[in-house]
Amino acid sequence: MFSLDFFQTYLLCHSEKAMSPKITGELLRQLRQAMKNCKYFSEPIQAYIIPSGDAHQSEYIAPCDCRREFISGFDGSAGTAIVTEQHAAMWTDGRYFLQASQQMDNNWTLMKMGLKETPSQEDWLISVLPENSKVGVDPWIIAADQWKNMFKALSSAGHSLVAVQDNLIDAVWPDRPERPSTQLRSLGLDYTGISWQDKITALRAKMSERKITWFVATALDEIAWLFNLRGADIEYNPVFFAYTIVGMNTIRFFVDLKRLSNPAVREHLQLDSPSKPELSIQTFPYESVYTELQAICAALGPKDKVWICDKASCALTQVIPKTHRTPIPYTPLCLAKAVKNATEIQGMKMAHIKDAVALCEFFAWLEKEIPKGTVTEISAADKAEELRSQQKDFVGLSFPTISSVGPHGAIIHYRPLPETNRTLTVNEVYLIDSGAQYVDGTTDVTRTMHFGTPSAFEKECFTYVLKGHIAVSAAIFPNGTKGHLLDSFARAALWESGLDYLHGTGHGVGCFLNVHEGPCGISYKTFADEPLEAGMIVSDEPGYYEDGSFGIRLENVVLVVPAKPKYNYRNRGSLTFEPLTLVPIQVKMMNTELLTQKERDWVNEYHRKCREVVGAELERQGRQEALDWLIRETQPII
Amino acid sequence: MFSLDFFQTYLLCHSEKAMSPKITGELLRQLRQAMKNCKYFSEPIQAYIIPSGDAHQSEYIAPCDCRREFISGFDGSAGTAIVTEQHAAMWTDGRYFLQASQQMDNNWTLMKMGLKETPSQEDWLISVLPENSKVGVDPWIIAADQWKNMFKALSSAGHSLVAVQDNLIDAVWPDRPERPSTQLRSLGLDYTGISWQDKITALRAKMSERKITWFVATALDEIAWLFNLRGADIEYNPVFFAYTIVGMNTIRFFVDLKRLSNPAVREHLQLDSPSKPELSIQTFPYESVYTELQAICAALGPKDKVWICDKASCALTQVIPKTHRTPIPYTPLCLAKAVKNATEIQGMKMAHIKDAVALCEFFAWLEKEIPKGTVTEISAADKAEELRSQQKDFVGLSFPTISSVGPHGAIIHYRPLPETNRTLTVNEVYLIDSGAQYVDGTTDVTRTMHFGTPSAFEKECFTYVLKGHIAVSAAIFPNGTKGHLLDSFARAALWESGLDYLHGTGHGVGCFLNVHEGPCGISYKTFADEPLEAGMIVSDEPGYYEDGSFGIRLENVVLVVPAKPKYNYRNRGSLTFEPLTLVPIQVKMMNTELLTQKERDWVNEYHRKCREVVGAELERQGRQEALDWLIRETQPII
Repeated sequence: MFSLDFFQTYLLCHSEKAMSPKITGELLRQLRQAMKNCKYFSEPIQAYIIPSGDAHQSEYIAPCDCRREFISGFDGSAGTAIVTEQHAAMWTDGRYFLQASQQMDNNWTLMKMGLKETPSQEDWLISVLPENSKVGVDPWIIAADQWKNMFKALSSAGHSLVAVQDNLIDAVWPDRPERPSTQLRSLGLDYTGISWQDKITALRAKMSERKITWFVATALDEIAWLFNLRGADIEYNPVFFAYTIVGMNTIRFFVDLKRLSNPAVREHLQLDSPSKPELSIQTFPYESVYTELQAICAALGPKDKVWICDKASCALTQVIPKTHRTPIPYTPLCLAKAVKNATEIQGMKMAHIKDAVALCEFFAWLEKEIPKGTVTEISAADKAEELRSQQKDFVGLSFPTISSVGPHGAIIHYRPLPETNRTLTVNEVYLIDSGAQYVDGTTDVTRTMHFGTPSAFEKECFTYVLKGHIAVSAAIFPNGTKGHLLDSFARAALWESGLDYLHGTGHGVGCFLNVHEGPCGISYKTFADEPLEAGMIVSDEPGYYEDGSFGIRLENVVLVVPAKPKYNYRNRGSLTFEPLTLVPIQVKMMNTELLTQKERDWVNEYHRKCREVVGAELERQGRQEALDWLIRETQPII
Repeated sequence: MFSLDFFQTYLLCHSEKAMSPKITGELLRQLRQAMKNCKYFSEPIQAYIIPSGDAHQSEYIAPCDCRREFISGFDGSAGTAIVTEQHAAMWTDGRYFLQASQQMDNNWTLMKMGLKETPSQEDWLISVLPENSKVGVDPWIIAADQWKNMFKALSSAGHSLVAVQDNLIDAVWPDRPERPSTQLRSLGLDYTGISWQDKITALRAKMSERKITWFVATALDEIAWLFNLRGADIEYNPVFFAYTIVGMNTIRFFVDLKRLSNPAVREHLQLDSPSKPELSIQTFPYESVYTELQAICAALGPKDKVWICDKASCALTQVIPKTHRTPIPYTPLCLAKAVKNATEIQGMKMAHIKDAVALCEFFAWLEKEIPKGTVTEISAADKAEELRSQQKDFVGLSFPTISSVGPHGAIIHYRPLPETNRTLTVNEVYLIDSGAQYVDGTTDVTRTMHFGTPSAFEKECFTYVLKGHIAVSAAIFPNGTKGHLLDSFARAALWESGLDYLHGTGHGVGCFLNVHEGPCGISYKTFADEPLEAGMIVSDEPGYYEDGSFGIRLENVVLVVPAKPKYNYRNRGSLTFEPLTLVPIQVKMMNTELLTQKERDWVNEYHRKCREVVGAELERQGRQEALDWLIRETQPII
């Protein structure tokens, strides 16, 4: 699943709202009342910022954290609301201008980000606030770096940014859902390859190398990875709400303690009989992380240093005195998690074979059903999920399926709703971007198909996208190369014809974890990405979108592997990619005359592997129709 | 001419020093005396930093500014010296470890940058200084951003960084050369296309658009460009020492006033009869910029803002109160200068034709002379210069010629010295990277030739480099693309065989100005480069260097031009490159079997154009031998 910017937070709230505006007058009155109520802060505040997000800077969030949606009605994945005594304004980007204007009532002003005339949040605040105003924000849901920028801008204009510890939206949200506390699942070595004890030891080695005495983990996927535990607190993401603080001799784990009554989890974490004192886990309630971190910081020696991600919440970051704080763009857990070990790689391969089985069956089914006129975007997505769910160790989807027909394919973030649901026909291009969580791995695949006769233009565009996909997948590059240096390879064929796509080319993929993860990726945006390394797993997903007509995207998940070219300059070694996704790419959509011999060879070798590997599994599972489809779709091209 | 990092300062001092160390004991004693002398600062300083550079952050510097070389003996292009009461240490990078150790006596410790065990300047200072030390530096030759970093690091360790207004090296350098004050040359509209008056008006429009009241220009090439004036104060760079401060109604020009006695220059600048009051130039002595800027800042209104480049000297930057200072990474002059107008483009084309004439003659001459065994790296470079100097409006070289045979070609920054001078033979690869300043334009071209029979490996590597050169030169890309997104195109063919080169692919080129200029470039390093625009001129110069054996580089200067591909996605428009350099690329060095048909077509079309355009000029100049050579070297390949 592509992301427009996988290093900006990309949020999805769950409830699909109908497109009528939420009535917010009374809610806003209550919120403004709370802004004046000294129960929450010693003096009234003149503005309150409601960012999207949770206390862990998660990409996907739980219903209890959908505060911006609750106060405004707007449920798009990105947006920041600011409410003052007189105004209520919502900043969002071009993907959501229409949706936000439909979902919000006229108490709200839509601030269209990216347009020249739209002020920044800071500039707008400065223009509307009376002198010496106080602007409040919940320090738990604003990242430390964002706080810093806002703080500077407001201070320089004579205002102040203040941390309001009680969330004011929660104060006016009587039926706010509970924070989820789903059952924890422990993963054995056969799934994880490394015990949590060894991960702690490796983390401490990195800490002592950099003379760090404490490490504060706040990202949910890092904590799940560290302890080899999974949860289901956030849809699509097998994580659970927790914090961890690791010292050289202690491990403090903050989580809803009820979850630890499960004997398997107690045993897994050795809560009752730790093997060594330094591997003994002290458990604390989730909410007590703040006071515990305060206690730790109060006892720091003059040279003690504490590692925390610079994207962690302002609240926790500011507990650590500045002289002791060492903010880092990526934590050692994030880096270690990105490089998959042999067991994880094996699991990811198995997950992708099962996923391919389900998709082969799905496409064979579509081919039969579409002519009957009964398949819709939603029913197709449901069918794909049903077929995946029949595979071993299926847990759920890894993100909401993008199932889009014709012009809907050109809406990059499209997700079918009952009121937009379109029927699949033999006349339009069908794009499906979907993936699943299996206990052994996470998948994410996009295929673009035509079940009738594609137009010459559709084929031409598809072929340029395919050329881009191959250029990345087959690229050989030196060790130490950052992913952003490969992005243009994916675009060169499109650019040559004056075409392009306005999203990145690839993102990191977790192993039975989040479908988007750092610190690597392939994008035209140059962020502080880490170099690609053997064992990292990313997506390769160029596309082309013809507004109002069709969308094309071709996505494989690929593994970074060593390459052995003819020479080895300065002994640096080389890398390339091995596709983990093994689902045929529709030959009918290709204009093979536009492919070079090398590209044709790549397609044939890829299809040969799909047939061999997925074919064997289809046979084992006795899915003959899908096997026939696979064999037909993997005939060599000339 | 490639630069290892054209956004780090790349300095060249002029005097070629023999490789025996300079005796520095007495000099250091005097410097340490000066560090204790309260004449220069109210209290003694415990360390003194001597950066490379001048007050304008120039890439090349005048002899009077070679202070780091004077105090240490080390004359490499990059290095920073720090002298304390006990120590003298020199930081430089891997290019210069050998040279620095040969040129410095044992009073100096060489700090090898890039090695893990080498401390940073800040860390080293903190480790050797007594508590509460004062570290001095000349604020004129340290850039504002560098000052900031050093200041922070020292402050956090309890020391202080102090600005020493009198340069302490100058205090112990009795025969320090005078600051050059060469004759100024005014350029008419037939060379510049835009009058300085119109440039001032355009600058003021940008200032008023951003509500800026003053602009301080400190970069010498920007000032030369703004006033359509050239000088010869710094070798290879047709610039002159000056500052300019532009307000909405005033222009203050700081320069050695003697230079303005020239009637042509007075007339050009309308010093005696300004056409309009706001275009009247007030002239001041070069040295008075500090006090004048102080006076301007003392009279600033509360909302007045002053633009200054963030790479300008700390001295001038700090004159501007922080609340009024708006530092920018690239000034509006830098951006305007980068996009060449039609007259400049025409001039650059003419300069490149003349340059090609000289080089065709040079290569024809080499071919004849090399077998006699009398041509050396130095005599070849001299011959190339002699032939260039015969061309109309020749002013000088644009950088020191890199003329290198065999293994010397693999030393990327090689410049032949009498003691290293190697003879050209028919057995070794010859690489020449050279360029000139003509009144109508600046050139920079690299060709790699073999005058006997190249080895299969040499040809293979040359062909990969050629493929990379073509991939950039022929690339089509959307408007708004930054140059760094094209860098990997230049490397893909090398990478595929496990090869690479460790420098950037291209830099901006001035028009009868500096051969390296911002703000655009093509590099794997991601800096804040500005998008490529039609009219910008950059170099395209991939290479391959086989240590101890040979070096290959292929460099053309190319103009960014609009492209017209089949489609026009979102009306963004497309760009591509047009080579300005028109010198044949040696077919003998190519393994044409490794080229695609598209690449062969590119070579043939390029050679056809060389033959047509340069052939006509060779004929006009009656240079028959060179014409014969050109015709032979531009035969189509199959």
